[in-house]
Amino acid sequence: MKRGADLDFLFHPKTIAIAGVSEKAKQFNAGLKFLEALMQFGFKGKIYPMNPSGGEVMGMKIYQSVKEIPDQIDFVISAIPARYTPQLVEDAAEKGVKAIHFFTSGFGEIENSEGERLQAEIIAKAKAGGIRVIGPNCLGLYCPAGGLTFNADFERASGPVGLISQSGGNAAHCVREGIGRGIFFSKVISMGNGADLNESDYLEYLAQDDETKIITAYIEGVREGPRFLKALKSTAKDKPVVIFKVGRTESGAEAAKSHTASMAGSDRVWEGALRQAGVVRADSIEEMMDITMALQRLPVPGGGKTVIIGIGGGASVILADEFTHAGLVLPRLSDGLRKKLIDTFPSEAGRIFKNPVDINNFESPEIFMNIMKTIDQCDEADLLVMQIAFDHFGLISTEDKDLLLRIYLQLIGEVKGALRKPLAVILHSFASAAMRQFAYEAGKELIAAGFAVFPSIQRAASSLSKFVSYHEKRKAAGRKS
Amino acid sequence: MKRGADLDFLFHPKTIAIAGVSEKAKQFNAGLKFLEALMQFGFKGKIYPMNPSGGEVMGMKIYQSVKEIPDQIDFVISAIPARYTPQLVEDAAEKGVKAIHFFTSGFGEIENSEGERLQAEIIAKAKAGGIRVIGPNCLGLYCPAGGLTFNADFERASGPVGLISQSGGNAAHCVREGIGRGIFFSKVISMGNGADLNESDYLEYLAQDDETKIITAYIEGVREGPRFLKALKSTAKDKPVVIFKVGRTESGAEAAKSHTASMAGSDRVWEGALRQAGVVRADSIEEMMDITMALQRLPVPGGGKTVIIGIGGGASVILADEFTHAGLVLPRLSDGLRKKLIDTFPSEAGRIFKNPVDINNFESPEIFMNIMKTIDQCDEADLLVMQIAFDHFGLISTEDKDLLLRIYLQLIGEVKGALRKPLAVILHSFASAAMRQFAYEAGKELIAAGFAVFPSIQRAASSLSKFVSYHEKRKAAGRKS
Repeated sequence: MKRGADLDFLFHPKTIAIAGVSEKAKQFNAGLKFLEALMQFGFKGKIYPMNPSGGEVMGMKIYQSVKEIPDQIDFVISAIPARYTPQLVEDAAEKGVKAIHFFTSGFGEIENSEGERLQAEIIAKAKAGGIRVIGPNCLGLYCPAGGLTFNADFERASGPVGLISQSGGNAAHCVREGIGRGIFFSKVISMGNGADLNESDYLEYLAQDDETKIITAYIEGVREGPRFLKALKSTAKDKPVVIFKVGRTESGAEAAKSHTASMAGSDRVWEGALRQAGVVRADSIEEMMDITMALQRLPVPGGGKTVIIGIGGGASVILADEFTHAGLVLPRLSDGLRKKLIDTFPSEAGRIFKNPVDINNFESPEIFMNIMKTIDQCDEADLLVMQIAFDHFGLISTEDKDLLLRIYLQLIGEVKGALRKPLAVILHSFASAAMRQFAYEAGKELIAAGFAVFPSIQRAASSLSKFVSYHEKRKAAGRKS
Repeated sequence: MKRGADLDFLFHPKTIAIAGVSEKAKQFNAGLKFLEALMQFGFKGKIYPMNPSGGEVMGMKIYQSVKEIPDQIDFVISAIPARYTPQLVEDAAEKGVKAIHFFTSGFGEIENSEGERLQAEIIAKAKAGGIRVIGPNCLGLYCPAGGLTFNADFERASGPVGLISQSGGNAAHCVREGIGRGIFFSKVISMGNGADLNESDYLEYLAQDDETKIITAYIEGVREGPRFLKALKSTAKDKPVVIFKVGRTESGAEAAKSHTASMAGSDRVWEGALRQAGVVRADSIEEMMDITMALQRLPVPGGGKTVIIGIGGGASVILADEFTHAGLVLPRLSDGLRKKLIDTFPSEAGRIFKNPVDINNFESPEIFMNIMKTIDQCDEADLLVMQIAFDHFGLISTEDKDLLLRIYLQLIGEVKGALRKPLAVILHSFASAAMRQFAYEAGKELIAAGFAVFPSIQRAASSLSKFVSYHEKRKAAGRKS
């Protein structure tokens, strides 16, 4: 199969020139911000600021044109007004630049024909000059291994997740949401209007990129439908692909058009095409990261039978509804298994050995471990879910609750090693100030320990259902998960 | 119309006896916890601890029986094992006690006939003795004005919201979630099995309670269907009623039965009945509080036409999809209005005068105020929504973002007074540690200032849609909102 262009060179430039750097600008100066971000992030190559007025910035000479720079330039970031971009492309072509990222907006996405004309002009000039274009109207690249970023505070560590985003803001959100769930990125592309390199190019590239094991994408619309779907289908055979496709409604499609000149297309068609391609469809940025976390952190489940274990009758009812509604199966536990559990853990008021299992409280760590192992070893469960409802406790004092929760969290931390089946954890219901902080810290620790941790019942139910169904479809298709 | 029994006496006892208080119990002692909670919360009347062993606790004499107490007893809390409860009821009846709250579980909700038998026995004895029963198997009452609580750390201030909950854990969660959204409570009832006083009794009571302006309820199933529906219908004419009805799925219904012996009933029937009664159906504890917040804080909208204003093209697309999907109408702004906006606020790259309006950034507070007033005064909008996506910003430094967000939040704080239409605020996408805390603090301030603030796009879309549709139905029925 024909793969797309090898875009590795985009992510590992040795030299970057930034057009439109000014220290004097009263307003926000994007060129300066790119310069600062790259330097703070630790870009290892050389950076050359540019501005027609010349001068100096942060002790560096400002070049008036890319042609003046006494070095080969691999990559240009454009933060100049749209009307000056044709000249920039011409100069870059003369200079032998390989790629330009246009942060600059005001092209195909705006509502007049001049924007479209200008976009066509720079793309034609770039093509003629052998330059690949990222954007316009985007934040560009984040690639920790290459030292590239569009935000100084992004995580420095690399990971196995690639992201293609038609929105810079959503790309930034996604990276931060991902880090919160223990997800690290190989390459993140904020691609904007995608006037030259588009979503198909990036997808084909990430498909064959060894650094990238899971591909995620925020898509408003695609330029080459058949090519994109073909790439999706072929990619999804080898790597999990999780897509958040927006523009589902008329208003959303309209907003997408204004935003990145994207044609959203019929949502019904998309739904079918994504399903057929074996792509997991996420319904939000958060869910895209949740599903990715599950795919990365949980072993392949034997099936979809889910057993939920936790404290609280009211929480159990909500969990049962939400998980069933999301499409997961909560099997009724057999009499044999229930007897085993009751033998391990003497029945007392408030303890319910149904599914969800409401353990109410626990006398000893041994009993808790035995309960978990008994469920893990039975063939009535494929996926185990532990839940803690932080704000559900009445009556007990804050100190006692604190102690109880700490014991419980420690047990969860310890039990994972003893289980064969996937174990997900839901830390939910933490509106009070104290529990909010507690749940956040607890989640951080569990995530650092390798757990898949969800911050709400709804998020867990929906993402785990999609996780299970991804693996079931692969199994049905005779593919290794 | 016949209203239910006047239950005011339950919420304003002068004396409380607590059965089952022990300082020596190795395990969690619920009686002691109730005693501590009531004292810390500041119950103004007298509390008498009880235990067959006698002795002292916190410097107070422990009585061996309610009959021994040298005072009239209005209210008894039972935290003794189920098997001792018939004797307690007999003694209480002799003593002239008016109400008993059974925290004690192990009755109708457990899986043997002995539990049911025991429950029937205590209810019969109570009835014979003229005692009303709360529970069994519940946390009981939280009523700030009466000094009653089941948790020492609950808010001391009263408010206009009543809550009936068939789960103690969910009641606790609801109170804490509510406080986080600026909701204060008149009376909260954790009613457990509802063996004597049931959801219909409490609903009929709250319907005629002057302190209660909005009624919320977490319902697993009801005992007297026709009575409950009749009460709902009649109540909803006067006060907004928001219900989270669970046990929607087979697993959920099964869990509800184990939890509070509730029969969930057909969800399709419930859906129709709630709609017909004019009740707002919430899909989670969080949503129940979100809708309540909107009903309490937002003026009645003229209709459902929603205009969303904020920063960020990617966020705009998601917002448009979610709001439309939830059933709200995002009208296309007329050319006249768009021209007015553009005249106020010179067009620049990245600024989109569609709906959602993406203001990208703002030159001055005056311009922002003018934009908002222009939209407020046009007849193309009934409901205004401002959104801030905390983690969506790329490129700008944390300090700059901080500054920008502070200006933005201050402007939102100032603009409300100048608007005639309902204005909701969404503070969303704050996964990063810094933004998480920032968004939380900002939300707290806006809530304190009287705003309706939502912590996610999905929550805002769904709750606001239900809020609008509540008022539209009332208008269609010719009722005052």
